[in-house]
Amino acid sequence: MNRITSLFGIRYPIIQGGMVWCSGWRLASAVSNAGGLGLLGAGSMHPETLREHIRKCHAATHNPFGVNIPLMYPQIEEIMQIVVEEVNIVFTSAGSPAKWTGWLKERGVTVVHVVSSSRFAMKAEEAGVDAVVAEGFEAGGHNGREETTTLCLMPAVRAATTLPLIAAGGIATGEAMLAARVLGAEGVQIGTRFALTQESSAHEYFKEYCLRLQEGDTRLLLKKLAPVRLVRNNFRDAVEAAEAVGATQDELRILLAHGRAKKGIFYGDLEEGELEIGQASALLYGKQIETVAEVMQELTEGYRRAWDALKE
Amino acid sequence: MNRITSLFGIRYPIIQGGMVWCSGWRLASAVSNAGGLGLLGAGSMHPETLREHIRKCHAATHNPFGVNIPLMYPQIEEIMQIVVEEVNIVFTSAGSPAKWTGWLKERGVTVVHVVSSSRFAMKAEEAGVDAVVAEGFEAGGHNGREETTTLCLMPAVRAATTLPLIAAGGIATGEAMLAARVLGAEGVQIGTRFALTQESSAHEYFKEYCLRLQEGDTRLLLKKLAPVRLVRNNFRDAVEAAEAVGATQDELRILLAHGRAKKGIFYGDLEEGELEIGQASALLYGKQIETVAEVMQELTEGYRRAWDALKE
Repeated sequence: MNRITSLFGIRYPIIQGGMVWCSGWRLASAVSNAGGLGLLGAGSMHPETLREHIRKCHAATHNPFGVNIPLMYPQIEEIMQIVVEEVNIVFTSAGSPAKWTGWLKERGVTVVHVVSSSRFAMKAEEAGVDAVVAEGFEAGGHNGREETTTLCLMPAVRAATTLPLIAAGGIATGEAMLAARVLGAEGVQIGTRFALTQESSAHEYFKEYCLRLQEGDTRLLLKKLAPVRLVRNNFRDAVEAAEAVGATQDELRILLAHGRAKKGIFYGDLEEGELEIGQASALLYGKQIETVAEVMQELTEGYRRAWDALKE
Repeated sequence: MNRITSLFGIRYPIIQGGMVWCSGWRLASAVSNAGGLGLLGAGSMHPETLREHIRKCHAATHNPFGVNIPLMYPQIEEIMQIVVEEVNIVFTSAGSPAKWTGWLKERGVTVVHVVSSSRFAMKAEEAGVDAVVAEGFEAGGHNGREETTTLCLMPAVRAATTLPLIAAGGIATGEAMLAARVLGAEGVQIGTRFALTQESSAHEYFKEYCLRLQEGDTRLLLKKLAPVRLVRNNFRDAVEAAEAVGATQDELRILLAHGRAKKGIFYGDLEEGELEIGQASALLYGKQIETVAEVMQELTEGYRRAWDALKE
């Protein structure tokens, strides 16, 4: 997995997802200090909050880290100005890479774009990105409309571009990291596992709840707006009931309202909040809330173990 | 992958899916002759048709083959009587393994059950099956309600039982076979790739259509009845339109009507038929309709290639 480690100057090709309400300076710096690439999640920060997190992150680690920016962010100009002043790695998602990639690269920033299809990967390559994250259906939070799973997406994207490829969605163990490598990925992006660490800024209730989920407890919903993988709770029950009777976009928007994700993930309102986590949560069932260092050690050891098992 | 090859007495741990309207004696015997395990698909055969296919399959191969039986089959008693008289390998799906597993095993039959969750895998183990197929969300045709993808399902089932484990869903290449092995599978079941071979009894129009699908062209629908992965066409557009406005079970049943799958897959009515194929079809884009022998060779060579690439 050499192109990814050399692109970012990191030890392990493990990139932390820039999940909303989880990915502050504590999480990002811990991942970077442990040899991965930490990402600050700009999606849930005001511009000045982001600047503050970047500065704290610089103080907390001498290793590289980056910022994840959803391209539909309302104050995108302001955010972009801040990131070029403060960091040199940006992951962009949820939007077209055509507008910002060149601007960022002219300013010396390494740009990675998150895609859910080989068609989008080709567009990202045309836009000049340095690498792509291909994120499958099993990922938490916002997700592609085509519902292509990581197993089917990796070889498709691998065949469509020559860019360094980072696999995301359903990867929470060293074993899955090795499977991703077999499928053509040179690195992995891990959201769920890091969202549930001690250093994540998610509420402890949310972390504990997600560490008790079983298969089938997350579901991709709100497809009429933007598909998002949600954990079962009162709020999701209401979404499912509305969708079952054919709720319109407007009706779903009213139900979704503002601040649901903050309410659920950051404030720990497990019933009325929007709880976003990936399918891989079921593979963490019964675990304690670990530190990033423990997770990184399990990932690298698990990868080595899977590799040894294969050679037998 | 030794437990699977020794369980069935086959050369490669590659099992052909028993897909409806594709899996007659020509396909099953070709797969068995090429060193895999062919399966006749009882789901789309009258009992006497099945007996005829079993006898023709015996005439066409000296190698082991089996029968796939959906347990909600209407004349299940009759089918079970025929299979114990004629074969000694049965794959059961779409129903509880508790009722028939013991009865089949008393009669010397090797029984494998298809599951979509670790909970169902444990039930299959309790029922006394010899192995399980764990089939992920990306698979064609009928599918589990929990939508767990192959990447997340394999380690979950691997952790839940000690049974030999066969991975299914999204596997159409040797590379994916190796990824499945990394995730704990000892063999694979391949549907989509074999459904589109020359020996498959599906209509040529269907095969050609499926070899031109791209990512996102299949979708899991009809979740209010039984979830099924469908290819885009007029019929599916009608299903999606009905579901978008909250169609009830009864309304969906009327739309589905009888014989839609036969119409689409066997008679080649690409617009009004129900076309079932897996997500992996997009990885076969632009291929010709190959023979089973060609597919088996590509699978085994691809596996070897992926293995060599990993060792580099």
